[in-house]
Amino acid sequence: MSTADIGVVGLAVMGSNLARNFARHGFTVAVYNRTYAKTAELIDSHGDEGHFVPSEELADFVASLKRPRKAMIMVQAGNATDAVIDQLAALMEPGDMIIDGGNAHFENTRRREAALRDKGLHFVGTGVSGGEEGALLGPAIMPGGSEESYESLGPILEAIAAKAPDGTPCCTRLGPDGAGHFVKMVHNGIEYSDMQLIGEAYDLLRRGIGIEPADLAKIFAEWNAGDLDSYLIEVTAEVLGHTDAATGKPLVDVIVDQAGQKGTGRWTVQNALDLGVPVTGIAEATFARALSSGVKQREGAVDILTGPTLKAEFPDTFVDDVRQALYASKIVAYAQGFDQIAAASAEYDWGIDLGSCSALWRAGCIIRARFLDRITEAWRSDPELPTLLAAPEFTKIVTDAQDAWRRVVATAALAGIPTPGFSSALAYYDGLRSRRLPAALIQGQRDFFGAHTYKRVDRDGTFHTDWSGDRTEHEV
Amino acid sequence: MSTADIGVVGLAVMGSNLARNFARHGFTVAVYNRTYAKTAELIDSHGDEGHFVPSEELADFVASLKRPRKAMIMVQAGNATDAVIDQLAALMEPGDMIIDGGNAHFENTRRREAALRDKGLHFVGTGVSGGEEGALLGPAIMPGGSEESYESLGPILEAIAAKAPDGTPCCTRLGPDGAGHFVKMVHNGIEYSDMQLIGEAYDLLRRGIGIEPADLAKIFAEWNAGDLDSYLIEVTAEVLGHTDAATGKPLVDVIVDQAGQKGTGRWTVQNALDLGVPVTGIAEATFARALSSGVKQREGAVDILTGPTLKAEFPDTFVDDVRQALYASKIVAYAQGFDQIAAASAEYDWGIDLGSCSALWRAGCIIRARFLDRITEAWRSDPELPTLLAAPEFTKIVTDAQDAWRRVVATAALAGIPTPGFSSALAYYDGLRSRRLPAALIQGQRDFFGAHTYKRVDRDGTFHTDWSGDRTEHEV
Repeated sequence: MSTADIGVVGLAVMGSNLARNFARHGFTVAVYNRTYAKTAELIDSHGDEGHFVPSEELADFVASLKRPRKAMIMVQAGNATDAVIDQLAALMEPGDMIIDGGNAHFENTRRREAALRDKGLHFVGTGVSGGEEGALLGPAIMPGGSEESYESLGPILEAIAAKAPDGTPCCTRLGPDGAGHFVKMVHNGIEYSDMQLIGEAYDLLRRGIGIEPADLAKIFAEWNAGDLDSYLIEVTAEVLGHTDAATGKPLVDVIVDQAGQKGTGRWTVQNALDLGVPVTGIAEATFARALSSGVKQREGAVDILTGPTLKAEFPDTFVDDVRQALYASKIVAYAQGFDQIAAASAEYDWGIDLGSCSALWRAGCIIRARFLDRITEAWRSDPELPTLLAAPEFTKIVTDAQDAWRRVVATAALAGIPTPGFSSALAYYDGLRSRRLPAALIQGQRDFFGAHTYKRVDRDGTFHTDWSGDRTEHEV
Repeated sequence: MSTADIGVVGLAVMGSNLARNFARHGFTVAVYNRTYAKTAELIDSHGDEGHFVPSEELADFVASLKRPRKAMIMVQAGNATDAVIDQLAALMEPGDMIIDGGNAHFENTRRREAALRDKGLHFVGTGVSGGEEGALLGPAIMPGGSEESYESLGPILEAIAAKAPDGTPCCTRLGPDGAGHFVKMVHNGIEYSDMQLIGEAYDLLRRGIGIEPADLAKIFAEWNAGDLDSYLIEVTAEVLGHTDAATGKPLVDVIVDQAGQKGTGRWTVQNALDLGVPVTGIAEATFARALSSGVKQREGAVDILTGPTLKAEFPDTFVDDVRQALYASKIVAYAQGFDQIAAASAEYDWGIDLGSCSALWRAGCIIRARFLDRITEAWRSDPELPTLLAAPEFTKIVTDAQDAWRRVVATAALAGIPTPGFSSALAYYDGLRSRRLPAALIQGQRDFFGAHTYKRVDRDGTFHTDWSGDRTEHEV
């Protein structure tokens, strides 16, 4: 009896919560886990939330799915994913689809999609963001894959997805093969950047002007009622406001200050380097986590590298300056991330619509934020924007914020508080608007020592100066 | 008749100059190029410089080499290299060696070394730095490979290598398989960083306080007589001092300000991300080149993103402040690069000696600089330094420079001149010396939205707060 609308393979927390989300929305959900105990546990605890079809054997699981079959796998990225795909594919028929909801690298997704396409199967690599709670209550879903697969799969995913304030489901087919996992990867990269910038804002207000965590919690909560309204600012207020029961100290003071990472920030930067898209905000955020975990270097430096000999002065406007610097730097991070998505879309012929992309980040995902409404409008009113910073509204925000932003970066440098995120965002802003960059000198240096040639501003062609000879210029 | 001490395959400029360098040092050099015309040209133009043994066929080339045969290939990285290796390997016998002097990715070198080792052949991946002129007159040579191969190959490479001021050849076996190409890759990454920092110094002095290129050339030449004494500063003075014959303008104003790249900077950063080593200086330099070449973004931004509304004040000490900021930032870039080499050496079990590494960069290569003597001493007096910044001499330099460095970063931010390299170096310095970093907040955020857990400062274990429940803490 094939009764299930969709199936989930892998019933750890994320898979289990997605299965429950499907069931709660009226879908009949086939469920399978390598060890049956997890399946039984799901049915025992939540079987009354909807229609589940548990199977002990994968073949039964597949047989329980209505055609075209839809099996969503929520297992560990890597070899485990490949193994499950192989097992499922052997049991499926042309037209069926396998959906990978894990954090796969988009290049693996491209490889898997191509392999399954050869067998007549659809492979849908999809980003799922929102953590465990999002999986249950409505995540942002970022599917890639064929248009045909989305016809029958799309309505099911859209039903369980988060809904934006205007009611639109936070789920859109982003493009073929790796497009969905790519967009999820950049989403995570932006998340790294966002968190780093918030961390710098916290550090500046605490180390710089001595505001304690409980008061900072209030400041972040206030910010969350304005332009910065976002899930991560809300989370920050909650964490800063939390007191450790064991010590009575602010929890943030009890946590070891070494940030972990699971790889998507790193992937984002590595790919941006391949594409030649500067994503300095994500790079600085990823490296700031690495620096924090570099215990050997930190322990070797902390007692011998001294701080500034001059005392920095903090302007009276510092709290609001930091808010503006955070907002402007955040916009830069998004501008860079969208550039990367656009570049990848062109490279892989994905046809990703940036407006749809920002629209689906408006709810459910970790970087959900009020200003994504504005970003969505910006891309929709001009999909050919050369950079998000050129959208009139964002131009106004960053140019209005710049005096505060500059004061913050300058003050931090003088005070000895590291702001790699704020500083690199400002450097990007100033780089982009520079009519002439010292890259001209770099080209001259490269021509001098490596005969790498250069272009001229006044005529076409490629030129080399005979530096070790008579220093005449030749067209090459 | 096997008379040649060494052979060179691939006679473009680099290969041809290396062959001449071998010949000039008294070695008999077999030479081979796919098209014989290049071989003939080398013999016609430079045959009188020493003993060359030209061959039209690769088999004759191999036969002309004394055993153990040593064939150095100087062909395009990638497929061309693999093809030549296969052809040579088929003609060689156990104990013979193939030396790849191109800019191969160290992972390819590891793969090739393993494949040839299975056949009883030695594969020596070696970095060669110094450009065309260096190849002829004495490059820095960074070989990886077996100790056995270095016994007979080493003396030949050391003979043609540049000599440090103390007479030591700039050629040392760095470790097995990919060690040589890895060190060359990081050398190039540091080169990117060095060039970006020099570019920022130029930009600050020109845009900031209006010093013209001809005068800047004098300033750089002066700096080159002090602590900053280095090939790249010398090159900078030469380029800035050069007038374009066609227009009468400074050449630097005629060159298009879009910097190119050939990949080694990118590789360095991508690998550092894998190793978890923050190389922010190299990352910012690589991305600054990408930004400069992002014509669409720059053209879209230049007329609409405005500069600061407040006029920045430049301190009277600005020229020397910039010199100190450049020096301190440069030291940070080297500290990061050495961290990366140490991390890779541990990861791949290469046993690279950082002192030998810095010693061999003292002459011949692009980043050759007087202060590499000091770096060499630092690693030799304490090979276990947690960071180069912890070497007493370098601690003193950066801490002494910090007030100037901070003024420069602050002034640049206020003036609207991008200094991603100076700023990120300062942020790294301040990050490393921070007793507490906002990474603690990031760990709190990660635990909140993703149940990623955290460590506590006051006891062992891994903890999670039940954020969506009663907010109690559990050890997990």
